[in-house]
Amino acid sequence: MSAINVLLVGYGKVGKAFFRLIQEKQDYCRHQYDLEPKILAIFRKHGAWYSKNGLGQEQLDERHWHTNITIEEALARESPGVLVECVASPSQTGQPGLDVMVHALSCGWHVVTADKGPLVAGMKELQNAANENHVKLKISGATAAALPTLDVGINSLAGTEIKGIQGILNGTCNYILSRMQEGMDYALALKRAQAQGIAEPDPGLDVKGWDSAYKLLLITNSVFNQELELSDIEVTGITQLSREELDSGVSQGKKLKLMAIMEKREKCQKLKVAPVWLESNHPLAHVDGTNKGISFETDTMGSVTVTGGKSDPRGAAAALFKDIINIYRKC
Amino acid sequence: MSAINVLLVGYGKVGKAFFRLIQEKQDYCRHQYDLEPKILAIFRKHGAWYSKNGLGQEQLDERHWHTNITIEEALARESPGVLVECVASPSQTGQPGLDVMVHALSCGWHVVTADKGPLVAGMKELQNAANENHVKLKISGATAAALPTLDVGINSLAGTEIKGIQGILNGTCNYILSRMQEGMDYALALKRAQAQGIAEPDPGLDVKGWDSAYKLLLITNSVFNQELELSDIEVTGITQLSREELDSGVSQGKKLKLMAIMEKREKCQKLKVAPVWLESNHPLAHVDGTNKGISFETDTMGSVTVTGGKSDPRGAAAALFKDIINIYRKC
Repeated sequence: MSAINVLLVGYGKVGKAFFRLIQEKQDYCRHQYDLEPKILAIFRKHGAWYSKNGLGQEQLDERHWHTNITIEEALARESPGVLVECVASPSQTGQPGLDVMVHALSCGWHVVTADKGPLVAGMKELQNAANENHVKLKISGATAAALPTLDVGINSLAGTEIKGIQGILNGTCNYILSRMQEGMDYALALKRAQAQGIAEPDPGLDVKGWDSAYKLLLITNSVFNQELELSDIEVTGITQLSREELDSGVSQGKKLKLMAIMEKREKCQKLKVAPVWLESNHPLAHVDGTNKGISFETDTMGSVTVTGGKSDPRGAAAALFKDIINIYRKC
Repeated sequence: MSAINVLLVGYGKVGKAFFRLIQEKQDYCRHQYDLEPKILAIFRKHGAWYSKNGLGQEQLDERHWHTNITIEEALARESPGVLVECVASPSQTGQPGLDVMVHALSCGWHVVTADKGPLVAGMKELQNAANENHVKLKISGATAAALPTLDVGINSLAGTEIKGIQGILNGTCNYILSRMQEGMDYALALKRAQAQGIAEPDPGLDVKGWDSAYKLLLITNSVFNQELELSDIEVTGITQLSREELDSGVSQGKKLKLMAIMEKREKCQKLKVAPVWLESNHPLAHVDGTNKGISFETDTMGSVTVTGGKSDPRGAAAALFKDIINIYRKC
């Protein structure tokens, strides 16, 4: 049995779901993988929790958020395991997540993250820190989470030349577009999405296409080992669609999707995010509602498409958990 | 640069495609993965090729099929690398592939295979031999090849409980069923498939559902670490469909697919292969022609579906190549 020391940074929706999932999956994880992840500490904006023996469900109580330990102290004090980063850091600076992750990697901790900002701002720095310290940086949680984009792009398609990527990478936009193609107008569809907890109160990052652009950037840079930047992506969101355009496309049997697209050129990758009308036989045409999907066009394996994977905090937590297992598993 | 010694056993359509692919991908493989696979020998039914320095395209000449070396001699003489098995061994005995693979694993060679028979007949024996000798047995080539079934089931869904699997795992049947739903009768659809090289001259294994059953068995046993047998699967093929049934289903907007299905029960897995009518919103409903697809239902990630992946010898060869890279890659 291998015990895995876990430090959880960030305790919003995803952090909470991750904490619950680890409690729920203890027995399964022990039985299936001979692994025992132990959450030693949780850090949120104000305060931390800490327990040498690992935190259990019974301890989830407001009274305990008073420990004075810092992330740096915990990283130094405990034997290295994995730091799980669920903060929502802005992509302009990548902070505070970027510094936390670089520091954890430098201390010999693996890092598993759902936080896109630090990866957009400092992927190279993070990857270098991981390589220099012979630890892993795993980012499934930040690249469409339960939809396995990198597993497929990096492992399943190893040895192929990937000529193109097309993805529906944002569940919120896909939900809104699905409703709009049923006749609803943008404002109402957005309101519905917000009421169901699908869209954030400030939906800008999603509906303007930036969330899709972040994921496309991270996927492309990871799969091709590149250092493209956000400014290399032409980004159009879904806020400017006219009813005429929608009705006309629908009447032709097509489906409108916010597509994140990579096209391989001679020596570079061309990236864009934009609403695109798909013919009904396109492998992503039937990915509706909050579902996501990604399609890779290759030289030797033809086209390989993955769809589905829950777009919710539990799905994101499951992606973090998967990355941890795949770092440590022996079978 | 790591050179990888490769012995290729079986030189039919897939073996030939693999040989060509390795030649074609030499530079790419060196540049991308710092790996250099070297085919030292090819074994076919009558005769072998062998070259200490690796075989190149220029040597592909009938005159050279005279080397007297046996597989056993080559395994003993060369430093262990990977044995690639592309024979078509019957599933009743698994021979000759089974003995060859067990022997290779015992000699410390990794094994990568596209041959379903030995895996159906002796998966446990093979896996034990791999474990005891600390080498890998990789079977993507035998589990729908370019469609990444095991990568997703084992790695991308690590930590989830897989409650169900539904797959369209045989491209020939899917092609025939697609044509039949356009109005063609079974005999003509089969003839077309044969004329295009999609169906074998003896199509029994495909159209009676056995090829799908083999793959379902291998996927289930691998994902759940089980030892189910072929006799645990209820198998129905596509040879007994009536025109009335087809017309009625098509008129309701449904799609008929030969489905390979695993349902998780309390303590066991229930397996069957049978033609099933899918509603048009089923994630596999739009997998047509020779395409394949697989859908996993999980507890924490929802449903994850993969579709596509070329159903031809080149696609199978690419799956073998992928497995080799994933055994040896460092990044």
